[in-house]
Amino acid sequence: MSPEEPENNNPASIVKAMYDGDRFSKLLGINVESVSEGACVLSMKIREDMANGFGIVHGGVTFAFGDSALAFASNSYGRLSVALEASISYPAPVNIGDTLTAVARELSRTRRIAVYDITITNQDKNVVGLFKGTVYRTSKPAPGSSGS
Amino acid sequence: MSPEEPENNNPASIVKAMYDGDRFSKLLGINVESVSEGACVLSMKIREDMANGFGIVHGGVTFAFGDSALAFASNSYGRLSVALEASISYPAPVNIGDTLTAVARELSRTRRIAVYDITITNQDKNVVGLFKGTVYRTSKPAPGSSGS
Amino acid sequence: MSPEEPENNNPASIVKAMYDGDRFSKLLGINVESVSEGACVLSMKIREDMANGFGIVHGGVTFAFGDSALAFASNSYGRLSVALEASISYPAPVNIGDTLTAVARELSRTRRIAVYDITITNQDKNVVGLFKGTVYRTSKPAPGSSGS
Amino acid sequence: MSPEEPENNNPASIVKAMYDGDRFSKLLGINVESVSEGACVLSMKIREDMANGFGIVHGGVTFAFGDSALAFASNSYGRLSVALEASISYPAPVNIGDTLTAVARELSRTRRIAVYDITITNQDKNVVGLFKGTVYRTSKPAPGSSGS
Repeated sequence: MSPEEPENNNPASIVKAMYDGDRFSKLLGINVESVSEGACVLSMKIREDMANGFGIVHGGVTFAFGDSALAFASNSYGRLSVALEASISYPAPVNIGDTLTAVARELSRTRRIAVYDITITNQDKNVVGLFKGTVYRTSKPAPGSSGS
Repeated sequence: MSPEEPENNNPASIVKAMYDGDRFSKLLGINVESVSEGACVLSMKIREDMANGFGIVHGGVTFAFGDSALAFASNSYGRLSVALEASISYPAPVNIGDTLTAVARELSRTRRIAVYDITITNQDKNVVGLFKGTVYRTSKPAPGSSGS
Repeated sequence: MSPEEPENNNPASIVKAMYDGDRFSKLLGINVESVSEGACVLSMKIREDMANGFGIVHGGVTFAFGDSALAFASNSYGRLSVALEASISYPAPVNIGDTLTAVARELSRTRRIAVYDITITNQDKNVVGLFKGTVYRTSKPAPGSSGS
Repeated sequence: MSPEEPENNNPASIVKAMYDGDRFSKLLGINVESVSEGACVLSMKIREDMANGFGIVHGGVTFAFGDSALAFASNSYGRLSVALEASISYPAPVNIGDTLTAVARELSRTRRIAVYDITITNQDKNVVGLFKGTVYRTSKPAPGSSGS
């Protein structure tokens, strides 16, 4: 943690507080597997009501899974951070019944801006989503941080 | 419609067939307002269970709304088209209770690849999402098309 | 111009000062056709030394053309603004000898963040590049502005 | 190499043939350090004529460097591949005199579509560009391949 970060923060406490209020992540059945500063691992079981008009999984489900990982990883330092933009590539379709894993990695972080990539794989270790997102780091404390 | 497109197709019939099977768009309460070749307009009312850990709307909801518009606009010619990648920028937050509108516009279309942008606004005409997506146009018929 | 913008600025003076120092835009032969707050139009003639290994134009040339438009449009208010990220889609190839036009449009602007799209067309009005970029608006004055 | 790839190809020969005709990569002083199937490493020395209007390096230079890496890595199998879209994030500015390195990595590859990320660092190992690109893999042979 760099000197400019809020002090005495616990990434797990912050992500727990965020997750407790995150009704959409819960609606999707997203689980937090692990979290550390600038990183997290999430899992998710794909349900039948996540299909699109082709019978495969709606791209918004896969994106939302990555977006939750972006939020948890970027807020883990205790500074409230909001997404400015994100992009996703879909190398392979996601099917009903799949179990997905998202691994968030911090690519860069300055005082105001940070960039993350999130790799989304299925139960066969095939990559089904490649997500990249940029956040703006506000001066406010994140939920569950020492300053909140 | 260019000569290479499937013939005798009705964009409304295709989008109706897609929407009928699109359980995730229905879960989100997405409505189809209008549709034509390469274009569509959707609406959506934001519910409390769409919030993220900050009490504003989860970015995945806004993205999924844009992604449904991408699917409907790109499949409207009768050729089954799948998203390769998409990106979104969030100029302003979406709040619980907002009513969103998505307007999809075709930016380019060749035999195999087409690009769309979707502008997402709230009830005050403020832009809350700028979505751009690229699709791969397969040789298969879309649901509800003359070839399906 | 919103009340929070620097006062008494002339977009043309700012862009002229930026362009005067912009050696790479000059190396590429980029011309400024017009400029106003949050917008600009640029032109560029494609030379033989802009080809890639396939004999068509290197994607970096088209992107750089869009990136110059992003810089000029976003700095036109007098506040020094730097790109955080950008994306481009290539609907059609650019050929040696083409004359390109870039039109920059402001999609959103808050105190710290602004988003622009730039449409790049050739002499036949075909779209050859679709560029979207996000800038961070610093507290410093842009070159050529009243505060510089 | 999967069974569906062209046979008896040498990634180094293909990239050499592409580079020989790639006048823009040469104009920028891009060097090929190494190449293998789906991957490559490039280097580049930043010159004074690559500055933008702020005296730092034009974003188009950094993007073009990544775009050359995308082209070389994606064509290395012997199948002519063209970029559909690409995005870049700029975690830190590039300065005149810097020496940049681009490392291309294949994230996914199917018969028609492949996705790559390219990490661009300076001489101090700081990340200055994060590039992601999608290519369309045609049925034609790449320059320098066994089928060309």
